[in-house]
Amino acid sequence: MQVINIQKCLSNLKEHWKPDIIQLGDFQLRIVRFEGEFEWHRHHTSDKIICVVSGEMFIDYRDSERVWLSAGDWYVVDKHSEHKPGALKECAIVLVEQRVTA
Amino acid sequence: MQVINIQKCLSNLKEHWKPDIIQLGDFQLRIVRFEGEFEWHRHHTSDKIICVVSGEMFIDYRDSERVWLSAGDWYVVDKHSEHKPGALKECAIVLVEQRVTA
Repeated sequence: MQVINIQKCLSNLKEHWKPDIIQLGDFQLRIVRFEGEFEWHRHHTSDKIICVVSGEMFIDYRDSERVWLSAGDWYVVDKHSEHKPGALKECAIVLVEQRVTA
Repeated sequence: MQVINIQKCLSNLKEHWKPDIIQLGDFQLRIVRFEGEFEWHRHHTSDKIICVVSGEMFIDYRDSERVWLSAGDWYVVDKHSEHKPGALKECAIVLVEQRVTA
């Protein structure tokens, strides 16, 4: 099994919102840097853990208050919740989700 | 959904090898500090991600070389592999596994 160094992965990322996607056993990691706002969306197949590596981000929901997350925070986005993530300044996170099997 | 601050959880842990266990959607986190060696064991039901928060640890296998992990490393232990984790000095990790449902 491979060892994934998150800082090394992050330093290889060239663009915001373009994740490095890594299969890790039963799981899938998305390592991503971003700034600004993403679109409203739902994750239909899997809850996703957000693990904030650096910076600060927020998640907006249609029917509840904005959630703020900082470095060292872990949080789960429910598979059915429509939400919109964003960051005022660059933020780096790891998303953990179930591995997608064909 | 709750926000889990890993440093806060770690600072509340009183003993080595006694994890704080947190249900997070489809997942379960075990946040733990440890030093020394654990026993040989297998995880029968789920692959487990090890995410090293601070320090350095190793994993011994019956039939392959010791794997060393440092802060910022993520690694998966296969559900069927017999293994023995340990650390020469105190190490803090988050384990991510599938949530156990009754």
